Amino acid sequence: MADKTPQVGIVMGSRSDWETMAHAARQLTDFGIEHECKIVSAHRTPAWMAEYAATAESRGLVAIIAGAGGAAHLPGMLAAQTPVPVLGVPVQSRALKGMDSLLSIVQMPAGVPVATFAIGEAGARNAALFAAAILARFDSAVADALNHFRAAQTQRVMEDELP
Amino acid sequence: MADKTPQVGIVMGSRSDWETMAHAARQLTDFGIEHECKIVSAHRTPAWMAEYAATAESRGLVAIIAGAGGAAHLPGMLAAQTPVPVLGVPVQSRALKGMDSLLSIVQMPAGVPVATFAIGEAGARNAALFAAAILARFDSAVADALNHFRAAQTQRVMEDELP
Amino acid sequence: MADKTPQVGIVMGSRSDWETMAHAARQLTDFGIEHECKIVSAHRTPAWMAEYAATAESRGLVAIIAGAGGAAHLPGMLAAQTPVPVLGVPVQSRALKGMDSLLSIVQMPAGVPVATFAIGEAGARNAALFAAAILARFDSAVADALNHFRAAQTQRVMEDELP
Amino acid sequence: MADKTPQVGIVMGSRSDWETMAHAARQLTDFGIEHECKIVSAHRTPAWMAEYAATAESRGLVAIIAGAGGAAHLPGMLAAQTPVPVLGVPVQSRALKGMDSLLSIVQMPAGVPVATFAIGEAGARNAALFAAAILARFDSAVADALNHFRAAQTQRVMEDELP
Amino acid sequence: MADKTPQVGIVMGSRSDWETMAHAARQLTDFGIEHECKIVSAHRTPAWMAEYAATAESRGLVAIIAGAGGAAHLPGMLAAQTPVPVLGVPVQSRALKGMDSLLSIVQMPAGVPVATFAIGEAGARNAALFAAAILARFDSAVADALNHFRAAQTQRVMEDELP
Amino acid sequence: MADKTPQVGIVMGSRSDWETMAHAARQLTDFGIEHECKIVSAHRTPAWMAEYAATAESRGLVAIIAGAGGAAHLPGMLAAQTPVPVLGVPVQSRALKGMDSLLSIVQMPAGVPVATFAIGEAGARNAALFAAAILARFDSAVADALNHFRAAQTQRVMEDELP
Amino acid sequence: MADKTPQVGIVMGSRSDWETMAHAARQLTDFGIEHECKIVSAHRTPAWMAEYAATAESRGLVAIIAGAGGAAHLPGMLAAQTPVPVLGVPVQSRALKGMDSLLSIVQMPAGVPVATFAIGEAGARNAALFAAAILARFDSAVADALNHFRAAQTQRVMEDELP
Amino acid sequence: MADKTPQVGIVMGSRSDWETMAHAARQLTDFGIEHECKIVSAHRTPAWMAEYAATAESRGLVAIIAGAGGAAHLPGMLAAQTPVPVLGVPVQSRALKGMDSLLSIVQMPAGVPVATFAIGEAGARNAALFAAAILARFDSAVADALNHFRAAQTQRVMEDELP
Repeated sequence: MADKTPQVGIVMGSRSDWETMAHAARQLTDFGIEHECKIVSAHRTPAWMAEYAATAESRGLVAIIAGAGGAAHLPGMLAAQTPVPVLGVPVQSRALKGMDSLLSIVQMPAGVPVATFAIGEAGARNAALFAAAILARFDSAVADALNHFRAAQTQRVMEDELP
Repeated sequence: MADKTPQVGIVMGSRSDWETMAHAARQLTDFGIEHECKIVSAHRTPAWMAEYAATAESRGLVAIIAGAGGAAHLPGMLAAQTPVPVLGVPVQSRALKGMDSLLSIVQMPAGVPVATFAIGEAGARNAALFAAAILARFDSAVADALNHFRAAQTQRVMEDELP
Repeated sequence: MADKTPQVGIVMGSRSDWETMAHAARQLTDFGIEHECKIVSAHRTPAWMAEYAATAESRGLVAIIAGAGGAAHLPGMLAAQTPVPVLGVPVQSRALKGMDSLLSIVQMPAGVPVATFAIGEAGARNAALFAAAILARFDSAVADALNHFRAAQTQRVMEDELP
Repeated sequence: MADKTPQVGIVMGSRSDWETMAHAARQLTDFGIEHECKIVSAHRTPAWMAEYAATAESRGLVAIIAGAGGAAHLPGMLAAQTPVPVLGVPVQSRALKGMDSLLSIVQMPAGVPVATFAIGEAGARNAALFAAAILARFDSAVADALNHFRAAQTQRVMEDELP
Repeated sequence: MADKTPQVGIVMGSRSDWETMAHAARQLTDFGIEHECKIVSAHRTPAWMAEYAATAESRGLVAIIAGAGGAAHLPGMLAAQTPVPVLGVPVQSRALKGMDSLLSIVQMPAGVPVATFAIGEAGARNAALFAAAILARFDSAVADALNHFRAAQTQRVMEDELP
Repeated sequence: MADKTPQVGIVMGSRSDWETMAHAARQLTDFGIEHECKIVSAHRTPAWMAEYAATAESRGLVAIIAGAGGAAHLPGMLAAQTPVPVLGVPVQSRALKGMDSLLSIVQMPAGVPVATFAIGEAGARNAALFAAAILARFDSAVADALNHFRAAQTQRVMEDELP
Repeated sequence: MADKTPQVGIVMGSRSDWETMAHAARQLTDFGIEHECKIVSAHRTPAWMAEYAATAESRGLVAIIAGAGGAAHLPGMLAAQTPVPVLGVPVQSRALKGMDSLLSIVQMPAGVPVATFAIGEAGARNAALFAAAILARFDSAVADALNHFRAAQTQRVMEDELP
Repeated sequence: MADKTPQVGIVMGSRSDWETMAHAARQLTDFGIEHECKIVSAHRTPAWMAEYAATAESRGLVAIIAGAGGAAHLPGMLAAQTPVPVLGVPVQSRALKGMDSLLSIVQMPAGVPVATFAIGEAGARNAALFAAAILARFDSAVADALNHFRAAQTQRVMEDELP
């Protein structure tokens, strides 16, 4: 991953979000999409977050996948500071099970969109699939990989047997 | 709108969703993005929905904005049947104020993503902005329009005065 | 089960729903009601779902019990594509404990009903009992079995002793 | 309605529920299904409720549609006392907007099912459609009416135009 | 307990509620209040419930403590059928953690009150304390026991030490 | 009301709660139960609240009906300071529609019970009915009035006609 | 207000929040506390927000009252960028009635606190009172005003009469 | 801690809250802020609570951190009885996961503010940080410690590495 320019940035508010966000990374790896994974905290490293957002476009990022829990401000604050599309993943929080994370991410005011996905692992994987769909527009290898992924998951369901 | 190929499809489950979804259409019009607006009901016209999804890519749609309320299945079922990115807008429902719409759209299982936006008008406008951001990647006019929009809304806040 | 025509179809969005839906199957077996159990995913196998719905009536199904979790679209989308009554079972989801599943199933718009039951095992068992009640109308053996079941459960409570 | 034997009973906890439940009655009338409409309160007339339930089957009712709000016990208590299928309609309550009604109806324990529909008017109409679907099994006129209804609503969506 | 006339009835919808309701029984025992504990299911034994309610006053019950979970109809239906005050205890349910139990019990319509307490063990214990407070009015031994209980619990907090 | 000793105290956190709590007062008046109505704020007049609680028993109050909204501490704090049974009425709040009021009142810890009733008018009326039921134990006039009330409301439902 | 150095900053995400936040301003004015009111949008003017936060301490602000609705990031992002205490006011949102605003503000991760107050007007007024309490520590005029305010509101309740 | 005058009081409704509130104590200790930790129950020791509140200012407390769960009345009742700023920490409750605690604390009526923090450990730690921020105003050692804490936590995130 190190020697190629990343096309997708995966960022998260704290190390504990990695268990969830790793699913996004794995999906991108499966598709051969270059990406970087970083801890960027809206609350503890706001300047670093601003810099990350400010340089995202010029560094070639096509999408940013941002995961956060609780009062999850990272996706929205990135979206406020970069024209690169931001995909938000609500991480399941301890007390409120991610309902706080979800509302903090999805209920953005008109003017600054964050594309939001499901709470937890499903959301992380789907954010990666959505990033791939954006890339597929101008990268036929990704388009093929995505089509293959969709066909394969359909096939797996068709062949699945109940006990 | 009729003589140009639409790049974005705006669909909604019923006529009553238009009050919300018109905000998406207006935003696309402001950006000069060709689009079509249609009523496509997952529950009342499933075959028409399947056909809409099946032809979306070949007809040149780059994104589909789908609004629905209550048990809102339209965005997810479109996403299940087309590789074109689907942006979901939860329409505010009468009894549960859109919480049902939101959960029905955002909580998609891993494998079939729907990019979800806020309940109601803000979500409709943001879905349009997000669609524009996807298009901006390969349409510099849209990129410019989007940058101008962002700068202008920042400017408006800076100049706004409280009573 | 294989050599008799099933009267009830039990379908579920993924293999992980079986733990819940098996309770429906067991109840039907207890009543001697022929049934089939299948994985049919609204999102990953929409064409297969459409076909399942399209042939349900002609294959002789009297009711379809459909279980799904999260953004649970399976029951509603089946109901959209078949005149056979659909009984929906909200499977308990990880983060939101089935509240998302419940709202996605029960809040159907006017025109396409899904008979919804409780979240989880109780809902699966009750969907089977309800299917039996529909069958009981024209199958006196099922009517008798159902009456016996109700009498027996009343009896069990009457005889139950607290420690 | 008076001189024919009703096939469906529509009952509700109080007169104020009529605004909602009238939608069920209208739908049944449209289908030419004989029905009766009555106020039966689980809490204020429990004996009358028990009698209504006890005689439902012998009086020829094929389904009971029961609407109630708040701590909505009517559908569940009817289901406890008759083998006739009970369809529950959560009436929108003042403070909690029908969330209390919904949970009180749908979360029945295993053993006594209530088929639950959406909060408010949509639920009332869908309960009627579902009752019609049960009747359609052995009444081809209802089956035809139901098929026509479904085709017509599909047609209406197809022909609908946005402003 | 057997040879004395019970003053308080503790009833619950199923054996699994005993873990919660035992706390009510223990508290009454501590106060020397005669009581009985029974499984009475609103849904599975409605006739037995009606009989229990109908005879409660003549058998000398001063209060009934009723615990139930999910669509918890037992407290409200008892209250509908007896003038004896009913104290409702929402048992913690599996999926919705007792929110369904709470709303099903507390949101009674005007005309038929159920005094509702907290979800789970705290509610069971408090229902017993409240029953004791009703009895204390005309039983000075209970009044003394209650006063002693309150003084003792205050004392315990005053003497408690943090680590 | 002034020259007779009140048996029931109706207190509320602010004047705006009167619209709700007046229903409790009216019900007591109908039953001929002496009562007093006062504004007692847990937060703005804690000393007055403590005094009210401290003198409640010696002044002859048999029950206190306490209504409050939002972070509704009045019922629980009265219950903490008097052995007189406290009946709590959650007043419907503006933003959260009384869900905050309900949880603040009902979720009392073990040791200090508050008998909680429905949000709003229904709860206020039911608290009055419940207070009457406590009084009925040793006041046969109230017992008669209560029985008459229950019979009359049953009668009214039996005679009610739908349009 | 212009010629004196403000001690408290009142900021809000958009002009529409003024209806709520004006209550905070009025309260501070009543106490004679110098303050400024500004629109600062976390999402539309992040750089301006960062600057506001960065200069808050050196400009002499003792507290910042920040109101926002929906995905309300303003209070948390200010708190991330200034050592000045931030008091957050959840503005009532249209669809979710401020529950989203509340959770977005209060559920901050450990390390960056936001003191959160009630949804809407009550929260705005209380944030002002809390700011006054902080100032009262070293400004005896404010301490006196606050004590007077508390005594007066107690007095008003004591003298209030129900109809 | 014993021989120095505490500047911050940490109080909690029961011993079981210590697991949460210890995080507040630890943070204050890290900052060298003198504090005391006590069990003060609003419901079981209201007189002791009133005394604690009444003497808080004269004993030199600059802030009170109060943690409680369920119907959490401690923070609000302290705030009602002392001019010392009260910081409320909603302790995670068993059934409702702290949503009841949060609403009981944060939804205070206008006139008596409680600064509320997140549910559980994060809230406890942040309350301590907020208390430190209040103290920092006139204690440069605390100001330095707080600045160091903030810089250090930023540094830790910057240096953190994902697996």
